[in-house]
Amino acid sequence: MTDFLIGLDFGTASARGVLVSVETGKEVASHVVDYPHGTLTKTLPDGTPLGRSWALQVAGDYLEAAETILSKLGNGRKVAGIGLGFTASSPMPTDATGTPLSDLHPDDPHAYVKLWKHGAAQKQADRINQQGGAYLDRFGGKVSAEWLLAKAAQIAEESPESWSRTARFIEAGDWIVWQLVGSEHRSLGFAAYKAQYDGADGYPNNVVDGLADRLSDPHPVGTAAGVLNQSWRDKTGIIGPCAVAVAVIDSHVVLPAIGAVTDGCFVAALGTSAVSMILSKEEYPLPKGIEGAAFDGSIRGLWCYEAGQASFGDTLNWFVQMAPRGKDNAESFAAYNAEAKALKPGESRLLAIDWWNGNRVPHADSGLSGMILGLTLQTDAVAIYRSLVEGLCYGMRQIFDLYIDGGFTVSRVVMSSGLAQRNPFLVQVMADVIGRPIEVPDIDNTTAIGAAIHGAVASQVVAGFKEGAAQFGARSAKTFKPDPAAHALYSELFSAYLRLSKNEDVKRAIQILNSPI
Amino acid sequence: MTDFLIGLDFGTASARGVLVSVETGKEVASHVVDYPHGTLTKTLPDGTPLGRSWALQVAGDYLEAAETILSKLGNGRKVAGIGLGFTASSPMPTDATGTPLSDLHPDDPHAYVKLWKHGAAQKQADRINQQGGAYLDRFGGKVSAEWLLAKAAQIAEESPESWSRTARFIEAGDWIVWQLVGSEHRSLGFAAYKAQYDGADGYPNNVVDGLADRLSDPHPVGTAAGVLNQSWRDKTGIIGPCAVAVAVIDSHVVLPAIGAVTDGCFVAALGTSAVSMILSKEEYPLPKGIEGAAFDGSIRGLWCYEAGQASFGDTLNWFVQMAPRGKDNAESFAAYNAEAKALKPGESRLLAIDWWNGNRVPHADSGLSGMILGLTLQTDAVAIYRSLVEGLCYGMRQIFDLYIDGGFTVSRVVMSSGLAQRNPFLVQVMADVIGRPIEVPDIDNTTAIGAAIHGAVASQVVAGFKEGAAQFGARSAKTFKPDPAAHALYSELFSAYLRLSKNEDVKRAIQILNSPI
Repeated sequence: MTDFLIGLDFGTASARGVLVSVETGKEVASHVVDYPHGTLTKTLPDGTPLGRSWALQVAGDYLEAAETILSKLGNGRKVAGIGLGFTASSPMPTDATGTPLSDLHPDDPHAYVKLWKHGAAQKQADRINQQGGAYLDRFGGKVSAEWLLAKAAQIAEESPESWSRTARFIEAGDWIVWQLVGSEHRSLGFAAYKAQYDGADGYPNNVVDGLADRLSDPHPVGTAAGVLNQSWRDKTGIIGPCAVAVAVIDSHVVLPAIGAVTDGCFVAALGTSAVSMILSKEEYPLPKGIEGAAFDGSIRGLWCYEAGQASFGDTLNWFVQMAPRGKDNAESFAAYNAEAKALKPGESRLLAIDWWNGNRVPHADSGLSGMILGLTLQTDAVAIYRSLVEGLCYGMRQIFDLYIDGGFTVSRVVMSSGLAQRNPFLVQVMADVIGRPIEVPDIDNTTAIGAAIHGAVASQVVAGFKEGAAQFGARSAKTFKPDPAAHALYSELFSAYLRLSKNEDVKRAIQILNSPI
Repeated sequence: MTDFLIGLDFGTASARGVLVSVETGKEVASHVVDYPHGTLTKTLPDGTPLGRSWALQVAGDYLEAAETILSKLGNGRKVAGIGLGFTASSPMPTDATGTPLSDLHPDDPHAYVKLWKHGAAQKQADRINQQGGAYLDRFGGKVSAEWLLAKAAQIAEESPESWSRTARFIEAGDWIVWQLVGSEHRSLGFAAYKAQYDGADGYPNNVVDGLADRLSDPHPVGTAAGVLNQSWRDKTGIIGPCAVAVAVIDSHVVLPAIGAVTDGCFVAALGTSAVSMILSKEEYPLPKGIEGAAFDGSIRGLWCYEAGQASFGDTLNWFVQMAPRGKDNAESFAAYNAEAKALKPGESRLLAIDWWNGNRVPHADSGLSGMILGLTLQTDAVAIYRSLVEGLCYGMRQIFDLYIDGGFTVSRVVMSSGLAQRNPFLVQVMADVIGRPIEVPDIDNTTAIGAAIHGAVASQVVAGFKEGAAQFGARSAKTFKPDPAAHALYSELFSAYLRLSKNEDVKRAIQILNSPI
């Protein structure tokens, strides 16, 4: 009987699993389960209304998805290891045994998983940032309302009773691992990036009363949290000891799937928003504006620095929906890409600042907004589309340059995701703007495959991530080479982008636009 | 037999005539004739190719239109006076008898009327501006490529033979009057605004060799150039001596039709582009950026200062065509206006700089281009439409403020044109932005009616423009009152508009966008 690996990708609307053969290194099956309750934004399942910007999930949905997927893929099979990627920060309160408080108090909004995009803890984030602390230096000087500290503070402040019932406050990804192996075993990835944990200082003190008692020390990624317990083996039919890897942030778990496992890799995952990471053996001071960094939190034995753009594919989608060029989005994108590609660099005569959902890096200001300059009666929709693509690439270049200026050496640039695979025009513009060759690995289900490789490393099916990537990751990549003339021209436009993005009159105008009407 | 007046409006694509009853003061008939040759931009009628940005017309088309309209409206009627408005500057070369050179040399592009929007004399305009001269102080420091001096220079430079054949170089409006009365009798309006004529100094010297010999001294508007000659009375069937008024620039001839005939009137004609005029008894130094001023050139006995926006309705049209909201433009505009009106001032969260066709006032720079700031994933097409309307109003306010800061007293604000009548939403935003009540006179065929009033004044049917306006002009107007709260909010946004419009980084970015690719 051949050995298998299972990778699980817990996304925002559904969970996906892939079954990978250890012998061939290939994906042999996959399965997707939508969460029955989806995301709760208006009411709890019992009808209790929720406030503005709330976004909750039901922990039981994850268990149900895990059981269905593991049974479907693993029943009767010898599975060596399971790994999983999870959205973050999506923390939840449980009792001391790990029972979700939402099972015990289904009418309490604070008893549910606060999904990563739950935005109702902004007040608490502001308070935490105002309070300050040395630990913030490792996170660009600010915690986000999306992170665990702010979400814990919201419960403690708005419902002390709920907070007093909370024995453990835990990322849903860590909680699933707890269920699978039978004991709590947290991930250094979640702890470092989303709860500001530091190897030397632990979690930050004095931010939320009693928070430290509700957390626990995390473990490096790529280690085993334990083995799949008997109850899960019984209900899924999985055979063998089956190591379960510590959980990983979903945007980081892709790294081994796309072969980005070594010092000097710059990796961008281009989705509705974009995450940009750089892997490094050495520790560098956090470049001003970069969001966070951790050792052992993404790939064992490496530092991973994280940055991002709050709107990426969303910006293009916004425009294509406003000025469609086909019967659906796919047709419109095909038409826009074909026509925009026919323009030369600079031929749009437009410059876009890509702040359609604020700016994460380097300004960390969700109140910023986008701009298009150069509009004339001759400007057509294709020129605007192209300028938006170029603007997104300038945003990426600004992050890239922050790393370079911070002393990092970039040996490879890898871009992944469906968008990168589907939109070669965009990737070519990116290569021309950044001035580096860009590899786009040829692989689907990247997040789940990356999780399976974490399972392989945790179960010692392979010696490490390098071997795991070679055996189970992408086998080929398309490389987009920069055109030197286009790069020179874009560099001039990028200098204009930078000047405008720092311009005081632009900032003041945005403040006036944002002031209450 | 009742007396009548006829007003003629020679536009870009067609000529329109109205027949007005002296007794009732009302329009009793109208007639439109398209020019058979339209505008020549690619080739001459014989197929001779034209260069880039050329725009010519055939003088014979005007005569044909005049004969048809005057016959249709005037045959068998006693017509007291005829007035006419004409596009400007649209000059043409003739021999000494007034025969168009295009009749004699139909294969010579320089023998035709150079229509106002003929843009191929930019090189000559640049040369004239570089050469300089005190006379330029009365025209914002620059002549435009659209004006007579540049167009004369283009012939003299590119085809000395054509220039040597040119005995008279004359605005097409003045040439039509010459045909009607049998002798040359030029208009002070054309001479002052389009050929930089000044009562004290005459035409500027040393700009184009031999130009002065090809021009002649102009006459105040509202005076008679002569009477309709026998040949025209024969072919049209018009009865009576029939005074013909000196010609008027089409955008100025509207003034009496909308009752704007007194000191302190600020008048804007909102078309595809916009012209803004202020009438004044006193002479003031030309505010920096205002394009020109003349006494007796628009309304007898008053100074008229002129400014404008190079794209107005065109900007809205551009957007509505890019993101339509109905089966045609009219439906789209109706939908956009209704939805944009439902937003509160400031609710678009956008700020637009209205330079979609460069900027005439105050920057006199056709290379400038437009900008939209504040774009987010929440921005919809209606918000963009509203921001464009607001941006156009900021552009108008900047001109309005230049007059105020220049010491002018504005007693009334009047806005005319189809756009003003059809789009009350836009006019309300304008009132809120400027902070003054705006009158929109209720009248159609404004240009032709204004021309008829010039005919009435020239024929002494009325004592002057005030009486003419009262008797034949608009009888009612809709007044749009500014909302003080909206005005305060717009003033803050306008200050951001001003700062951005002067910002060095914005200018530099536009320069980079304009540089050859």
